[in-house]
Amino acid sequence: MEERLMFASDYMEGAHPAIMERLMETNMQSTPGYGTDEYSENARELIRKACGCPDALVYFLIGGTQTNATVIDSVLHRYEGVLAADTGHVAVHEAGAIEFTGHKVLTIQGTAGKISAADVKKYVDDYYADDNFEHMVKPGMVYISQPTEYGTMYSLEELTALSEVCRSFHIPLYVDGARLAYALACPSNDVTLKDLARLADVFYIGGTKCGCLFGEAVVVPDPTLIPHFFTLIKQHGALLAKGRLSGIQFETLFKDGLYEKIGEPAIKAADKIRAALVEYGYKFYLENPTNQILIILENSKLEALKKDVELSFWEKYDDTHTVMRIATSWATTDEKTDKLIELLKK
Amino acid sequence: MEERLMFASDYMEGAHPAIMERLMETNMQSTPGYGTDEYSENARELIRKACGCPDALVYFLIGGTQTNATVIDSVLHRYEGVLAADTGHVAVHEAGAIEFTGHKVLTIQGTAGKISAADVKKYVDDYYADDNFEHMVKPGMVYISQPTEYGTMYSLEELTALSEVCRSFHIPLYVDGARLAYALACPSNDVTLKDLARLADVFYIGGTKCGCLFGEAVVVPDPTLIPHFFTLIKQHGALLAKGRLSGIQFETLFKDGLYEKIGEPAIKAADKIRAALVEYGYKFYLENPTNQILIILENSKLEALKKDVELSFWEKYDDTHTVMRIATSWATTDEKTDKLIELLKK
Amino acid sequence: MEERLMFASDYMEGAHPAIMERLMETNMQSTPGYGTDEYSENARELIRKACGCPDALVYFLIGGTQTNATVIDSVLHRYEGVLAADTGHVAVHEAGAIEFTGHKVLTIQGTAGKISAADVKKYVDDYYADDNFEHMVKPGMVYISQPTEYGTMYSLEELTALSEVCRSFHIPLYVDGARLAYALACPSNDVTLKDLARLADVFYIGGTKCGCLFGEAVVVPDPTLIPHFFTLIKQHGALLAKGRLSGIQFETLFKDGLYEKIGEPAIKAADKIRAALVEYGYKFYLENPTNQILIILENSKLEALKKDVELSFWEKYDDTHTVMRIATSWATTDEKTDKLIELLKK
Amino acid sequence: MEERLMFASDYMEGAHPAIMERLMETNMQSTPGYGTDEYSENARELIRKACGCPDALVYFLIGGTQTNATVIDSVLHRYEGVLAADTGHVAVHEAGAIEFTGHKVLTIQGTAGKISAADVKKYVDDYYADDNFEHMVKPGMVYISQPTEYGTMYSLEELTALSEVCRSFHIPLYVDGARLAYALACPSNDVTLKDLARLADVFYIGGTKCGCLFGEAVVVPDPTLIPHFFTLIKQHGALLAKGRLSGIQFETLFKDGLYEKIGEPAIKAADKIRAALVEYGYKFYLENPTNQILIILENSKLEALKKDVELSFWEKYDDTHTVMRIATSWATTDEKTDKLIELLKK
Repeated sequence: MEERLMFASDYMEGAHPAIMERLMETNMQSTPGYGTDEYSENARELIRKACGCPDALVYFLIGGTQTNATVIDSVLHRYEGVLAADTGHVAVHEAGAIEFTGHKVLTIQGTAGKISAADVKKYVDDYYADDNFEHMVKPGMVYISQPTEYGTMYSLEELTALSEVCRSFHIPLYVDGARLAYALACPSNDVTLKDLARLADVFYIGGTKCGCLFGEAVVVPDPTLIPHFFTLIKQHGALLAKGRLSGIQFETLFKDGLYEKIGEPAIKAADKIRAALVEYGYKFYLENPTNQILIILENSKLEALKKDVELSFWEKYDDTHTVMRIATSWATTDEKTDKLIELLKK
Repeated sequence: MEERLMFASDYMEGAHPAIMERLMETNMQSTPGYGTDEYSENARELIRKACGCPDALVYFLIGGTQTNATVIDSVLHRYEGVLAADTGHVAVHEAGAIEFTGHKVLTIQGTAGKISAADVKKYVDDYYADDNFEHMVKPGMVYISQPTEYGTMYSLEELTALSEVCRSFHIPLYVDGARLAYALACPSNDVTLKDLARLADVFYIGGTKCGCLFGEAVVVPDPTLIPHFFTLIKQHGALLAKGRLSGIQFETLFKDGLYEKIGEPAIKAADKIRAALVEYGYKFYLENPTNQILIILENSKLEALKKDVELSFWEKYDDTHTVMRIATSWATTDEKTDKLIELLKK
Repeated sequence: MEERLMFASDYMEGAHPAIMERLMETNMQSTPGYGTDEYSENARELIRKACGCPDALVYFLIGGTQTNATVIDSVLHRYEGVLAADTGHVAVHEAGAIEFTGHKVLTIQGTAGKISAADVKKYVDDYYADDNFEHMVKPGMVYISQPTEYGTMYSLEELTALSEVCRSFHIPLYVDGARLAYALACPSNDVTLKDLARLADVFYIGGTKCGCLFGEAVVVPDPTLIPHFFTLIKQHGALLAKGRLSGIQFETLFKDGLYEKIGEPAIKAADKIRAALVEYGYKFYLENPTNQILIILENSKLEALKKDVELSFWEKYDDTHTVMRIATSWATTDEKTDKLIELLKK
Repeated sequence: MEERLMFASDYMEGAHPAIMERLMETNMQSTPGYGTDEYSENARELIRKACGCPDALVYFLIGGTQTNATVIDSVLHRYEGVLAADTGHVAVHEAGAIEFTGHKVLTIQGTAGKISAADVKKYVDDYYADDNFEHMVKPGMVYISQPTEYGTMYSLEELTALSEVCRSFHIPLYVDGARLAYALACPSNDVTLKDLARLADVFYIGGTKCGCLFGEAVVVPDPTLIPHFFTLIKQHGALLAKGRLSGIQFETLFKDGLYEKIGEPAIKAADKIRAALVEYGYKFYLENPTNQILIILENSKLEALKKDVELSFWEKYDDTHTVMRIATSWATTDEKTDKLIELLKK
């Protein structure tokens, strides 16, 4: 089953060994359900501390699409939609989960997956300048991802500017941190968890792609932002009966700062692969410093690689080339990385 | 953390040791996501065999409310609602998750949690007899649970009659099997997995309460019933990225017929507790043969018990009595059962 | 086309002649759309005066089901449902329009179509007393109709009590006034428009059944209750392009107190018919003082009547009897009333 | 009230005099509700004949946004979205009414408001070519408007090509005919009602902007396309109690071919205004042959005009120019047209 090299995504293994160990140790304990157990409470407290937001609501949901749909629907008013880059996960790859909750995703053309404070300001200004704005969906939230779907990151300066624009319009800023650990592990990153908690109005710390079996931790620094969030989570089918499973996982990730280091092997491997790609003359579709590498492959080379490696299809580039993604993860080993580099050599 | 006796519910421990062992063994393997891995495929095949429905769609979702909302919304047409007992989980304890998808839960007064073929026939006949039926929600599905929320079970005869009525009206019959293992382990049960697959149009085999960390296996014997179910699951936020976790769990449960035996300790413990309750003169709120015992406790006795045991509140009975639930599970040990019986002795 | 006597409902004719006259006079004027015209503004002001609520939002919608769905969805939070009598229009005869917006209708068993302050108090108290209340739909609004679907009315005392209970729980009280003119025209009524505006948090003044071609005027005494209501109305498909049509109709109804008198012919006719029914020994299904008479007819008598009169089916009473509704309206003439009485004579 | 010249839109007057006359004549007749009356049946039959589709379902709804939301939600499956030009009414100006029903509007960049068969083919081909298509919203319907929001029209050739592509993918084609009468009255139009009924799978014949007080007639040539449409209309709050009002209006429009002629005064007036604009050296934002003229005005000229004429804001062009819309209608008189031309002269 494991003969092929798997670089298709960052959710192909189980969980970090430290997590599995704790799940085994605690397996036969009896605890109350729905996140009311001590492990969950402890995990929430560790997250509040790591983020420097002692009053925050912290809730554990199961997956990214579910978290996005639940959070966005819970924050927005009925007459509002969510602003996002046209390449945002919520705009493209969630099977309409946001619209399913009744809300429009209002798109802004992104640059390498990112939108700027100026983009948001222009969108909202234009909205109010339109005589017919009351016939249109009100922008009620801004959605960004850190790192983005294209592996790019917002700098502290960019995030600060976005936050300021959002607050000037009283529009909450929401950060999807599905791959947050890979940003935090990047040497060029200057946005900390505390910055996120200070600048965003709600964000989630990704577990599924960052070492957990599953799970995303939603952080709401101002606890009054989402009243009755527990009931809303239940209503959206996102409440885990054995809530302690999330608690144990995030407790492990946040006990000794593991979350902030867990992405390091991924970044090291990606950097090594990037260096090899440059050396071998490959063309990048887009440059970024995180764990997703987007390259333009000749279709013939792609066919050859497919025998030994699993990459993921990104998009057709032209009739003879395809954009493919190479994703590393917390579980990527030196051995696998070296094998891949070997195969990439022409 | 474990000093108190926990009999509040059947989802207070982790997973059956055989499941944990397999999760550990496979943890660092790399597999594709979203249930396209070999473990999931194998689990689907084992379930198809156990249920005698070789063409069935089998999908793994995460929890009960999520499964109910996703299945019901996916089967119903927009103009239809789902018929259920007024005590049904979908009618009461899902925070409006069914209505959130736009569908009404049409209720029938149940008897000990059950509805009969005659009840359904009368409801549908009355609907069509009403001059204004086109202004009303069309009954488009029948929801039952086996065992029910009250721990009672449908007999094969009752289920057959329900199935016949539903098919005469072309209304799919859906069986919520959140606690199905506890029915299957009951000596008095005469409804097998194969019967369910033959008589129901869609049902789910509960994992969360029956030995899994999480997970419910939806079985659709006629694969044409729900087109594009994968996309619908994604849209409802119910798609697990690391789908193999469900695959491994259900593969373990169905490899050697474990699922059909896993509830036995729960039933044995419940029967032993029931015998003690009878001996000690307790009054049952309702009699049933499965793993949930509903008793009417004097409030003073309840207060005394609370020091040592965690039970779950069912409802207020009168000013001096309360209905409480004692739930056993696959994880209940003889030692705990004996301790509880000791405490129940007056 | 008009040979048969029509007593099936109160929306079988066009509009009151005074309304038709104004629509003709103004037909070729050019006015801005969507209710921003002077007729609409004037109508809003007249309604505010009649209701004694100078700051109220007043919006014109088109029909009853649409108004209920739009108002209820706009007032409720996502996690809330609306409490109503089990016989309430929203619970039975709106094809699931409330659930379509994502909200559950929580039902209370009504008495002759009414629910009491005590009923509401018990429901809400029970909700909070339940250990699992966070897994349930929160009651977020109370819906009543005045007069009710059964033609009964709330007294000022009953309405005051309901209002007090609702306010003690911070739950808005909503009154569906589809047939409000028929309550206002009843000698035994003691609830004025000003009382409604004082005791309800939102209500609508019915036009469709009370002399308009179509149209319902929603009154929100505290204008902060529903932010962005214009956009919400548009989103629910309830915004009329030629908004002045509603403006002209309600301006006519409220200019010289017409609305408070328009139901008088209906009540007089109904009282006359009721007296004849008593005299002829008919059995009422329910007694009420408004424009809907519910009688239990022998099926043979019903068949005989059907040749000449159109009544409306209410429900099957037993194998030989049927409950039928006789509805009078603002358009009922003495001539028609006398003919009906003649036919009812055995 | 009528001193200013009103050219802001085509829904500023009441109804065509022939319609008002019939509403007056029939006002005090008693008819059954909800479109079951003889006028509605007659109107449906006249429309079926005019469209050459004898088996068609014909339903009358009230306004455009409502009709779009009801039709689109009724035709689409839960997992599908509707393809539309990015400038389509459903994409921009319906306050999110489509998303409110749970469906995504999938946009294609239009050309002067139109999308082509090739655009649709590319979109659907790309969808199926994407490895992740099951994680994306399936295109389940194509929405176009005839004429478009920009006043342009589809030719018979273009519409035939669109229809063929849609049918090759089994995707219904839906035509929004809010202003259809203005296309039908255009000398350069070559798409008849019969063509629409043959090439579209569902379309609506606009009443609100084409001579009615309100009302849109939905035509479904294949009556099996939308089961239970009556209940769906009710559920969407779009069912008119006094359905005959729509029946009488559309009966009048279709009795002697009035609908196909009613737009002529609008087109004549628009052509005359266009000629004057050319003569006076105005710059068009876009050329089209129907009743909406889009011109680029200097802001100073715009300010001067505003004193005497009501136009409608389209969009900001640059810092010194604004795009404005001049709309003519069935009610536009020669006198008004000449006055406007006078004012446009510099």
